[in-house]
Amino acid sequence: MRNPPSLVSLAIDSAVNNWPSISDLSFLPEHILLELFSRTLKAGKLNERILKLFVATGKEEIRSVIEELNIQHILIPVLPTRDINCDEVDIVIGALQLDLTSFMEEWRPVFSQFNLIIVQDPDLKGKLKIPAGFNFDLYTKSDIDGFLGSLSNAISFSGYCCRYFGYLMSQKKYIIAIDDDCIPAKDSAGNFVDAVAQQIINLSTPATPFFFNTLYDPFCEGADFVRGYPFSLRSGVDCGLSCGLWLNLADLDAPTQALKPELRNNRYVDAVLTVPARTMMPVSGINIGFNRELVGPALVPAFRLAKEGNLRWETVEDIWTGMCVKVVCDHLRLGVKSGLPYVWRKERGNAIESLKKEWEGVKLMEDVIPFFQSLRLSTSAGTAEDCVSEIAATVKEQLAPANPVFARAAENMVEWVKLWKRARTR
Amino acid sequence: MRNPPSLVSLAIDSAVNNWPSISDLSFLPEHILLELFSRTLKAGKLNERILKLFVATGKEEIRSVIEELNIQHILIPVLPTRDINCDEVDIVIGALQLDLTSFMEEWRPVFSQFNLIIVQDPDLKGKLKIPAGFNFDLYTKSDIDGFLGSLSNAISFSGYCCRYFGYLMSQKKYIIAIDDDCIPAKDSAGNFVDAVAQQIINLSTPATPFFFNTLYDPFCEGADFVRGYPFSLRSGVDCGLSCGLWLNLADLDAPTQALKPELRNNRYVDAVLTVPARTMMPVSGINIGFNRELVGPALVPAFRLAKEGNLRWETVEDIWTGMCVKVVCDHLRLGVKSGLPYVWRKERGNAIESLKKEWEGVKLMEDVIPFFQSLRLSTSAGTAEDCVSEIAATVKEQLAPANPVFARAAENMVEWVKLWKRARTR
Repeated sequence: MRNPPSLVSLAIDSAVNNWPSISDLSFLPEHILLELFSRTLKAGKLNERILKLFVATGKEEIRSVIEELNIQHILIPVLPTRDINCDEVDIVIGALQLDLTSFMEEWRPVFSQFNLIIVQDPDLKGKLKIPAGFNFDLYTKSDIDGFLGSLSNAISFSGYCCRYFGYLMSQKKYIIAIDDDCIPAKDSAGNFVDAVAQQIINLSTPATPFFFNTLYDPFCEGADFVRGYPFSLRSGVDCGLSCGLWLNLADLDAPTQALKPELRNNRYVDAVLTVPARTMMPVSGINIGFNRELVGPALVPAFRLAKEGNLRWETVEDIWTGMCVKVVCDHLRLGVKSGLPYVWRKERGNAIESLKKEWEGVKLMEDVIPFFQSLRLSTSAGTAEDCVSEIAATVKEQLAPANPVFARAAENMVEWVKLWKRARTR
Repeated sequence: MRNPPSLVSLAIDSAVNNWPSISDLSFLPEHILLELFSRTLKAGKLNERILKLFVATGKEEIRSVIEELNIQHILIPVLPTRDINCDEVDIVIGALQLDLTSFMEEWRPVFSQFNLIIVQDPDLKGKLKIPAGFNFDLYTKSDIDGFLGSLSNAISFSGYCCRYFGYLMSQKKYIIAIDDDCIPAKDSAGNFVDAVAQQIINLSTPATPFFFNTLYDPFCEGADFVRGYPFSLRSGVDCGLSCGLWLNLADLDAPTQALKPELRNNRYVDAVLTVPARTMMPVSGINIGFNRELVGPALVPAFRLAKEGNLRWETVEDIWTGMCVKVVCDHLRLGVKSGLPYVWRKERGNAIESLKKEWEGVKLMEDVIPFFQSLRLSTSAGTAEDCVSEIAATVKEQLAPANPVFARAAENMVEWVKLWKRARTR
């Protein structure tokens, strides 16, 4: 049995939790100051004000610790000491190509810290090539078939949709999904962008969907709420979904890319923002993070067009999914962020070929979007599962009569909720 | 009488208007190519595709013209050739200090192209010092008193509010307002930011308030709508108001600035976006542009706290104004943009001093914001004047009973509409 903590130790813990009420440290002996500094740092609570209090004690050892840790003069913003808890995160990768070597090597400094869930596109024959040095769970066609059992009629996990199987399998708080044609981007200064760290920051800091902050995410380092932002809304709400962006290929739709074959996105916008409540946006599944516990069931692979190939299905599937999640977040008073991090998206596919396939989806969106914009859920829907079930019922009632693709979407959503429950009770 | 245009000239004009259907210029003689290039440039239609067609002709003279104009290799984005029509713009400057020399000199390359409306704070005694080489109309206390006549009881144009008198006096389509403690900012590459040109681009390109584009303003050079953005919403709507931002002083409220005296904004976010419909945001009057013809009357100096000085009144006054404009724009299906351009804001005022004055405003905002968020105007309100009158009536009915400051705000709004009409019928 461990010894019980000493009174001094308990007092220090209490101080770490009560920084706002502490304004003077000068009366503390040096060894306690050192311990308090170390625990504050570890708890991710060191900020400018607290650092100043330590510096103001004038104690030599404290100053030298600050120097050793290379914490710069307090005029320069102190970097966040937030610890990323890797155990709370799964990175989900849908493998659409057999050889993942170059993709994994590009991401090695990031991916090697986390558990990966790799799902092989069930239509992709052969054995995946994954370099050594990563922790991962691999799921293939036989795992998918085994899990689905008799429920395998409706939902297909082929093509990009295979990543949704990874969402089902995860047990972690946060899921980060990165497509296998994306490599790390560089910021304007040429620095490697750690997309996973940024997604976790976005997901673990509050979102502000009820009033727009003109200087963007007030929880970013060096930012705050602009004059006039109501104080009652400044604590924000939990963030459900964080949508990252893409440099190089700009995730345009096929008609736009076909008309502007040379258009590339090279504008690095150094901002994260909360998409306001009741505002819809086109979510792309390429580079996203979400809080699985809060909104996981809403990431639903529901909307598939008939008679299409398996590579560009997702051109409308993730748009539909995005609107489901946004409606669910708005209803549950959660936030959706958009902006950083960027990934670098490499060439894949042919816009003109996609155009032939996608036109149906583009036209259907004109009905889908007003539907989601006006959708309001009942107060009895208290979880993401409830919300998805309710959306499915409304889709069946309002959209399905116009086109059988909507009837299938509604069925898929019902099926998905069942799969989600099955995955939780394994 | 002028000679009628030649057939060749008419054919060239027609080509300029039909670029999308032209894919080959190789058959044209050089002198026609040169004329076509010049007119295309003048019409603001030169883009990468067209430039490539000219380059592909291989004609020596065309190449040398492109070189002379320093149009870089076509892999680098061609700068917009949009012409700014200076006759459509008034720049309004509220003068809160007598010596405007250094302010005006900083802005000389920009301001010297436009007509300026300079309004001297009526509480500021003495004669303004304005350097030579600018076109401006100057308004002082006597002009203000003369115009107001018997209506001078309610609305005060003292302090920052003096700029509103400039809004009344302008007859132009666009108004750009820049505070006299702001100087030009530099972008991330260290280039001088022409804030006025950017405001005009924001105001003269469509806004997209009904669906959020994750890659920001799709009408920026090199940008477009992201996959999934509904085609029926891509034409956008007219932009009513464009809110620029600030580097250095970040326009925080007094409590925030007092708590974080060293916090400065140094994040240059290279983006413009449309604030979605029905989303409120804190507008600052420091660096804005608006379409006077569409929304002018909604820029109303209505909300003044009692017993305050004349320098920091505006800390809630422009927040109120901003919410009026946003509600009016939402109702009239116009857009509000936020983001670029930045200005560099110099130090002025003392946060702790302001805190004493501002606390009342901060508290009142907690009632004001839900009011504006839920405000819906009647379909009979078809102009900005109508909307302001209707908002005034609702303020009187719903907010005034709680606090006389709201009753005064309602009166001021009614008065303002009268002044606006008077200014139009001079």
